[in-house]
Amino acid sequence: MSLEESFAKLCVNPEADAVAVKSLVFKPKTPKSATPVPIVVVALQSTSTGSGLIASETATKEPRLARDDLFGSHFKCPSAKAFHLGYLTQSESEFKLLLDDALTKIDDSKVLQLNEEKFMLKSQLIEYLHQYSPQIVDFSQEVVKKPETKKPSAQSTASQAKSAALEDAKLIGITVDKKLDFSGWYQQVLTKGEMLDYYDVSGCYILRPPSYAIWEKIQRWFDDKIKAIGVQNAYFPMFVSSRVLEKEKDHIEGFAPEVAWVTRAGSSELEEPIAIRPTSETVMYPYYAKWVQSYRDLPLKLNQWNSVVRWEFKHPQPFLRTREFLWQEGHTAHLGQDEAIEEVMQILDFYAGVYEELLAVPVVKGKKTEKEKFAGGDFTTTCEGYIPQTGRGIQGATSHHLGQNFSKMFNISVENPLGPEHPKVFAYQNSWGLSTRVIGVMVMIHSDNKGLVIPPRVSQHQCVVLPVGINSKTSDEQRAVIHQKAREIEQKLRASNVRAFGDYNDNYTPGWKFSQYELKGIPLRLEFGPKDMSQDQVSVVRRNDNRKFTVKIADLETRIPEILEEMQNDMYLKAKDLFDTHRVIVEEWKDFVPALNKKNVILAPWCGVTECEEDIKDSSAKRDDGEEFEADEKAPSMGAKTLCIPFEQPELKEGQKCIRCDKKAIQYCMFGRSY
Amino acid sequence: MSLEESFAKLCVNPEADAVAVKSLVFKPKTPKSATPVPIVVVALQSTSTGSGLIASETATKEPRLARDDLFGSHFKCPSAKAFHLGYLTQSESEFKLLLDDALTKIDDSKVLQLNEEKFMLKSQLIEYLHQYSPQIVDFSQEVVKKPETKKPSAQSTASQAKSAALEDAKLIGITVDKKLDFSGWYQQVLTKGEMLDYYDVSGCYILRPPSYAIWEKIQRWFDDKIKAIGVQNAYFPMFVSSRVLEKEKDHIEGFAPEVAWVTRAGSSELEEPIAIRPTSETVMYPYYAKWVQSYRDLPLKLNQWNSVVRWEFKHPQPFLRTREFLWQEGHTAHLGQDEAIEEVMQILDFYAGVYEELLAVPVVKGKKTEKEKFAGGDFTTTCEGYIPQTGRGIQGATSHHLGQNFSKMFNISVENPLGPEHPKVFAYQNSWGLSTRVIGVMVMIHSDNKGLVIPPRVSQHQCVVLPVGINSKTSDEQRAVIHQKAREIEQKLRASNVRAFGDYNDNYTPGWKFSQYELKGIPLRLEFGPKDMSQDQVSVVRRNDNRKFTVKIADLETRIPEILEEMQNDMYLKAKDLFDTHRVIVEEWKDFVPALNKKNVILAPWCGVTECEEDIKDSSAKRDDGEEFEADEKAPSMGAKTLCIPFEQPELKEGQKCIRCDKKAIQYCMFGRSY
Repeated sequence: MSLEESFAKLCVNPEADAVAVKSLVFKPKTPKSATPVPIVVVALQSTSTGSGLIASETATKEPRLARDDLFGSHFKCPSAKAFHLGYLTQSESEFKLLLDDALTKIDDSKVLQLNEEKFMLKSQLIEYLHQYSPQIVDFSQEVVKKPETKKPSAQSTASQAKSAALEDAKLIGITVDKKLDFSGWYQQVLTKGEMLDYYDVSGCYILRPPSYAIWEKIQRWFDDKIKAIGVQNAYFPMFVSSRVLEKEKDHIEGFAPEVAWVTRAGSSELEEPIAIRPTSETVMYPYYAKWVQSYRDLPLKLNQWNSVVRWEFKHPQPFLRTREFLWQEGHTAHLGQDEAIEEVMQILDFYAGVYEELLAVPVVKGKKTEKEKFAGGDFTTTCEGYIPQTGRGIQGATSHHLGQNFSKMFNISVENPLGPEHPKVFAYQNSWGLSTRVIGVMVMIHSDNKGLVIPPRVSQHQCVVLPVGINSKTSDEQRAVIHQKAREIEQKLRASNVRAFGDYNDNYTPGWKFSQYELKGIPLRLEFGPKDMSQDQVSVVRRNDNRKFTVKIADLETRIPEILEEMQNDMYLKAKDLFDTHRVIVEEWKDFVPALNKKNVILAPWCGVTECEEDIKDSSAKRDDGEEFEADEKAPSMGAKTLCIPFEQPELKEGQKCIRCDKKAIQYCMFGRSY
Repeated sequence: MSLEESFAKLCVNPEADAVAVKSLVFKPKTPKSATPVPIVVVALQSTSTGSGLIASETATKEPRLARDDLFGSHFKCPSAKAFHLGYLTQSESEFKLLLDDALTKIDDSKVLQLNEEKFMLKSQLIEYLHQYSPQIVDFSQEVVKKPETKKPSAQSTASQAKSAALEDAKLIGITVDKKLDFSGWYQQVLTKGEMLDYYDVSGCYILRPPSYAIWEKIQRWFDDKIKAIGVQNAYFPMFVSSRVLEKEKDHIEGFAPEVAWVTRAGSSELEEPIAIRPTSETVMYPYYAKWVQSYRDLPLKLNQWNSVVRWEFKHPQPFLRTREFLWQEGHTAHLGQDEAIEEVMQILDFYAGVYEELLAVPVVKGKKTEKEKFAGGDFTTTCEGYIPQTGRGIQGATSHHLGQNFSKMFNISVENPLGPEHPKVFAYQNSWGLSTRVIGVMVMIHSDNKGLVIPPRVSQHQCVVLPVGINSKTSDEQRAVIHQKAREIEQKLRASNVRAFGDYNDNYTPGWKFSQYELKGIPLRLEFGPKDMSQDQVSVVRRNDNRKFTVKIADLETRIPEILEEMQNDMYLKAKDLFDTHRVIVEEWKDFVPALNKKNVILAPWCGVTECEEDIKDSSAKRDDGEEFEADEKAPSMGAKTLCIPFEQPELKEGQKCIRCDKKAIQYCMFGRSY
């Protein structure tokens, strides 16, 4: 008899008011040579199972929620998600079992919900667990804090010294705190929210429907904008021969170390290795030269939606640094420079629009320094975002003016419109790109310890409709009416173009569903129960701030779209406030690093000299208190880079010196630690 | 002084009623050891410059329009397109110059239009050409046919024995005849129509805006359809590790010889080579196994729009056989087989819809034989098209039912919904794909010797509005009014969602523009001149059949969309008639090959046995008259394959034998030479 079959014999049919029970597995810290003994905690869902108490009760160090590998090695269970108590029978080595005292005290005839699918009589569960000699723990006692033995990292603060594990996290939900372990949180919020999954080729990720749907919304919006200014879409091959790739030297220098090379097809070695495009300048421009024969062929404005490959060897991060990523790349050629520059700015505004109007993410627009600009171009404009938890800036999207550098290299030229007696004119070119990185920035900024928070304008789904308040006393008829009405509400919303869906599954409790849809970041939850029905209303909860409204059913078509827009706006304002208050003006060097350490980005008067820029980066990589900076692989560059020279400039004082050197400042520059 | 400068000195300003003059360059056939002497022909646009006459006048063999390489080597001119008579000065070796007698006879004071940009007094041109000792030729004399020395190819017919070059082709237009040199015609119609360009990595092509726009229309239509049945879009990485790729043996066997391998990144050799996906079954299914934990996770229906790479070593052909191509691939997993099969058929109907409703291409739906089905699947459904000029079938798109083959391999399974006492259930899977091949099929079927013909529903632009009838007698005021009115017509059409644009450029004659937009396949040409203005009407010409209408301006918003729909429908009916009359029922083997040779596909009673299928293919690869089949690299497989077993079956006679062997026929099968 299989595990599933034998365990199922103990189970009973689902019951609506079953008591939710969680089973968590912890792995304590052990020396590398020792085999860790897992700790299985079975407790009421409502019980806080603090890791401090677990540590003291089991005399172990720093128990952390176990990862898939432990579930596999110890319980032969494919993943944490698949785990249930039936797997205990498969353990061939030791584990500890802690049983929540509160759980032992409830009525023996109660039905417990062990996970989505499994329900069991309380008496039966206790009997089953008995064979593993559980230790009864009263989790309501005060947590006994053991002194932390782990050396705090450079970024640690006093409060971070405690475990980043959320004290009351359910296994299925987010189990680390955004404030305490940002990178662990980011990974969980993406994977558990089903935005993304890790892939077995390092640095590549799977974009699951909720994230791809956001990308589609962005595509539609941006595509309409660029088509309105005369850009056309096209598709160029992903392959580029080495000869062509290497044509523009400055340009290729930046990409060469990251280029992926195809050298074999089937079992044949290729005569010449072929590169996968890291970007398409050198792919496209030879054809621009061919197609542009007369000034009437200009402007030539093409865009493509594709994926590019940059085989970075740095620590990859979902959306932010990936070896393959989706983007659009626009490449345009113009007769006049003014026209080209106007377009660069127009596109930058569109990019800012993607962030601010769609993703509710505030950005600062500006120009990159010579050091940070796109290699081979004249200048680069950028919109820069800010991640409050890490205090780091992040490049949002860039729009480059290439001047005539590429057109001279590739001979994209036309006869002079003034007449053939004038010299031929090389085209002025732009290139501009926006990638799926935007989704990562959006997630980092808005999401929280309950999971994803997604701005309504881009969310795949905007509302979930849930019947609530149905319990054992509800008559079948009443239940049917509530479900029917809830379905009508869903239909009504869809008819007014709200992306709504309903969840009428009786096997899950409303509380379970609430957590699920919070985890997935559905913007609005519409609850509809007997009380709502009697008052012709729906209860509405906003995901971003848990604010609750009641909306009359007659007003749904107008009010729900309004609430969605209000929510979008509030999310933007909240993020903007955080960026605005953490973008500080600093005029003296002594205040520079302390301001950085307070998770700010800095506006500082600056001389514009590259050597000074490098000096600032080096000097800010150490702490001002003289303590050596401790390298953190998750923070590969902790010195402050120039993020951009903002277009919106504070007024420069007469004779203002550069923040770092003795030269005269020529502008304010935005500095920050960055991604 | 540069060439352009000195030649420009001879030129005059553009004039609206200039006489169009063409300059063509021919290359005669010469032994490989000899250097060919180009023949430059300068003639009135309206003069037919037959290659037969050119041959006899110059005592050369088979003069053909020269290609870019000759323009480069002989005249230092970048391309045929860029060529004008100024380049004659750059020739360092010999060429022959033929001058149209009719051209010499027109008035010396006439302005001639040499190409888009260059205008010259007739007297000046004659003087300029004088230095090259032109030979005056009267092209109106009867063509002196020389006996053809070239051995006719296997496909040649009596009529094909004459040159495929269009006798009156303009250099900028299509210069080969669709009937006589289909593959040369196909290449020209795509490149000169600006659908596609050849790329410097063999087997890869550039999709230019007019073809990509068609793809976008298909995407939008199909995407809406599949989303309505619950499919969601996602994006999986383009890379797959060899270990995973090779998991499903049957499947990978079909793709292994064509897989492109990345072995190097920057200057580092990868530890393990990584494949570029040839299709994504093995990329996606390990994650399906992970995500599908309960039957409530089914059905799982994902689709992606991406590009895949199959490094074929056969002769590549734009759209039809390319090493990278764009497609969508849908991959779904279902609990029940009926539901899965229903979806396979639903998707096949959508595919047929793409062809029939959007591309005006008739298809036959059916099932592939065991030999031709997708490796690793249970069965493959397909829609099959037909190319009249070659008489060959072409696979349109396929929708596969994979059964449980992949789910067992990858363990995509759930607990039995009947209860855990029943064995676990492996998912039933489908995969289905439609690629940019559809565009090639569309072009082959509808386009003609004037260039592209594109069905209005998918065409990037639907109408071009052209002011006409403006000549030297037209007053500036009149001209302005006509232009103004034409612009209003354009606006009116755009306001009623007709994809219209106007061409108000005075430097081109209407005739020049007509040819241009015919070449590009703009479905409707709207001409508006003084006569139309006086009668409040527009003259409308349909690209597909040159039918001309007049439409009252007041009726434009209703009538133009109607005409576009009528045109769409007529294109479909014409293609359907050709397919229907070339899909013939053959019941005896002796009629099989003769029917094939008449460019038919064949419906024949068949036993369903693979060995018989192979025998039919081998036996039909030879001509029935006993003559050996002559291999043609453009027709790599001239034996008849099974195209499909059509769902719509002729009635099988009692006791009907197989067309080829002695066994009983079990169904009609569609056979044909194919792509």
